[in-house]
Amino acid sequence: MLTFKESCIGVMKLSKPPVNSLNLEYLTEFNIAIEKLENDKSCRGVIITSALPKIFSAGLDILEMYQPNTDRLRQFWTQVQQLWINLYGSQVATVAAINGHAPAGGCLVSLSCDYRIMAPNYTIGLNETQLGIVAPFWFSDTITNTIGFRKAERALQLGYMFTTDEAKACGLIDKIVPPDQIMAVAHEEMKKMFAVPDFARQITKNQCRKQFIDKLHAKRDADTDNFVNFITKDSIQKAMGKYLESLKKRKSG
Amino acid sequence: MLTFKESCIGVMKLSKPPVNSLNLEYLTEFNIAIEKLENDKSCRGVIITSALPKIFSAGLDILEMYQPNTDRLRQFWTQVQQLWINLYGSQVATVAAINGHAPAGGCLVSLSCDYRIMAPNYTIGLNETQLGIVAPFWFSDTITNTIGFRKAERALQLGYMFTTDEAKACGLIDKIVPPDQIMAVAHEEMKKMFAVPDFARQITKNQCRKQFIDKLHAKRDADTDNFVNFITKDSIQKAMGKYLESLKKRKSG
Amino acid sequence: MLTFKESCIGVMKLSKPPVNSLNLEYLTEFNIAIEKLENDKSCRGVIITSALPKIFSAGLDILEMYQPNTDRLRQFWTQVQQLWINLYGSQVATVAAINGHAPAGGCLVSLSCDYRIMAPNYTIGLNETQLGIVAPFWFSDTITNTIGFRKAERALQLGYMFTTDEAKACGLIDKIVPPDQIMAVAHEEMKKMFAVPDFARQITKNQCRKQFIDKLHAKRDADTDNFVNFITKDSIQKAMGKYLESLKKRKSG
Repeated sequence: MLTFKESCIGVMKLSKPPVNSLNLEYLTEFNIAIEKLENDKSCRGVIITSALPKIFSAGLDILEMYQPNTDRLRQFWTQVQQLWINLYGSQVATVAAINGHAPAGGCLVSLSCDYRIMAPNYTIGLNETQLGIVAPFWFSDTITNTIGFRKAERALQLGYMFTTDEAKACGLIDKIVPPDQIMAVAHEEMKKMFAVPDFARQITKNQCRKQFIDKLHAKRDADTDNFVNFITKDSIQKAMGKYLESLKKRKSG
Repeated sequence: MLTFKESCIGVMKLSKPPVNSLNLEYLTEFNIAIEKLENDKSCRGVIITSALPKIFSAGLDILEMYQPNTDRLRQFWTQVQQLWINLYGSQVATVAAINGHAPAGGCLVSLSCDYRIMAPNYTIGLNETQLGIVAPFWFSDTITNTIGFRKAERALQLGYMFTTDEAKACGLIDKIVPPDQIMAVAHEEMKKMFAVPDFARQITKNQCRKQFIDKLHAKRDADTDNFVNFITKDSIQKAMGKYLESLKKRKSG
Repeated sequence: MLTFKESCIGVMKLSKPPVNSLNLEYLTEFNIAIEKLENDKSCRGVIITSALPKIFSAGLDILEMYQPNTDRLRQFWTQVQQLWINLYGSQVATVAAINGHAPAGGCLVSLSCDYRIMAPNYTIGLNETQLGIVAPFWFSDTITNTIGFRKAERALQLGYMFTTDEAKACGLIDKIVPPDQIMAVAHEEMKKMFAVPDFARQITKNQCRKQFIDKLHAKRDADTDNFVNFITKDSIQKAMGKYLESLKKRKSG
């Protein structure tokens, strides 16, 4: 994670080659970095972007879920939950500068921010069902809050990946920005949010989102059990094995 | 009900002349047919359409509600609830091929499916208030989930019937399809849903819709009491009598 | 308040110069007037508009919140809550004829009606955060129900004032009407609602909105405590002092 501050704005550049996939260690690093900025009183906003070309984040690392050690799998999921709690409930203003593809967890990170700008000709979406897994209820709540129940339900069922244009049309992202201007525009959008007193913006954000974060807090252990039980099923492991095999072939092919 | 299977897709053609109105017997038949397909392990999807020209379904049979026997009225409503529970909570993929007008209960059947295609130049809507009756909370939840709170509230209050074009514009239906292509397109749409592993699609659908179905389960008896008390009011019966009289005149006129 | 009746329609013209700001006395008068029309069995609808040029209502009177007497502040907030309960839960059909700017409380009054028509070239929005205060949860629920979660959250955070055109585009208002036709169109829209039997429209409206009104009833005292505690904070009072000072300078400047 490349983290630096420009006056009151923290910039987090995801930098885990090749595709910014989120494994336990990287999630832990992500959470520590966001919590540090959150607790830095001089920090009013955070921009999340990618340091790698063409990919914002490939999402959760599937290798964490394949033939897992159960203890590590629980820790992994706890960090995924924590990342969402940290981002969706963040007191600082957040902008996702989506400068590459953003499937699954990469999409979730984007949707958890306050504003989303995206470079053209990429794709974004919660495509979990395409991999034979299921986005949990708080992923579902987050996309429903962004694009409404009907479009969210449909996108979740199909595991649909939206093009940048489609994402803009349905409100999944807020603005399309050429890649060379994406950081400049992220700063401009941040300024719009800074025009409002921080505490008023924070209380308002909290009032809108708190019920959803509370729901995960209330069901957190059950959600982890549910994830672990699901992922460790023989049928899911077999499907994942085939998927990983097909990835290997694609790479070597 | 004309029910047949084409490989893994069940097709249900509503065929109760003259207008596919849903009385106790037809609702019971509808529920048995859908439950049979649901329990058929080779069945992955169901298309619901009409075998009659120009009408998808006129909705609930008003004769069930006029001068009713209370026991039968309770059974009738129980079957209406069950139809919605079966369709909105269906594990198989469902497509409504709306090849005619779809007022009231006909609209509800459509909205309970996963995808809606509709032939041009028809109308669809929950027009209950136009008849002096009221769509129950689960009808209201279903349309709110489809087109959002504001448009749903307005449509419900006015008992608004949308043209095919208006329905498409506000998201009440998903696609406009010429009548001679409607079954072919229904099959194409089904294939898109089949591209996702069934269990992942089912868990996702369940996660989105379960809370609404649970709400009806929790209030089912009260909802039936409420319906029976409302319908058997003198004022409602008188208004319904006048409405039926006006229908007779229209037919003989 | 200029209140008169044209057959079954009550018309309320806000007439508190210079900007129809809502102080304790005017809120009380507003509530008495709306309750009187609500209890008048010959009254089926209410149109709310402004008798002043260019302003619908400036919203809550900021002078009620600056250096307040706590008892009066509690009474003030109780009347604000009551106004929303009366309007959002009104049994009569309501149309807001927005013939001027409608910030903050002026926007809330509009959003609490059943239908909104607005003259061009004005602005409307819940701009509380711009003043360093926070719209309570029931303001938030009301705008979320009107334009959806995402747009509402964004507008609330930024305290965004929509132009008439922007308000129409996102569904915050329903129709743009030239100022000289606004009362005529309000009557036309009322007639559309009167085409449905009143009781069916009322039960339907109640079914949609009751849960939100119930939520305020359940938390009413806590909401008042919350408001009073927030407003009487030193930091809020200081910010408000500066804001009032800047207003004075603008007027004298």
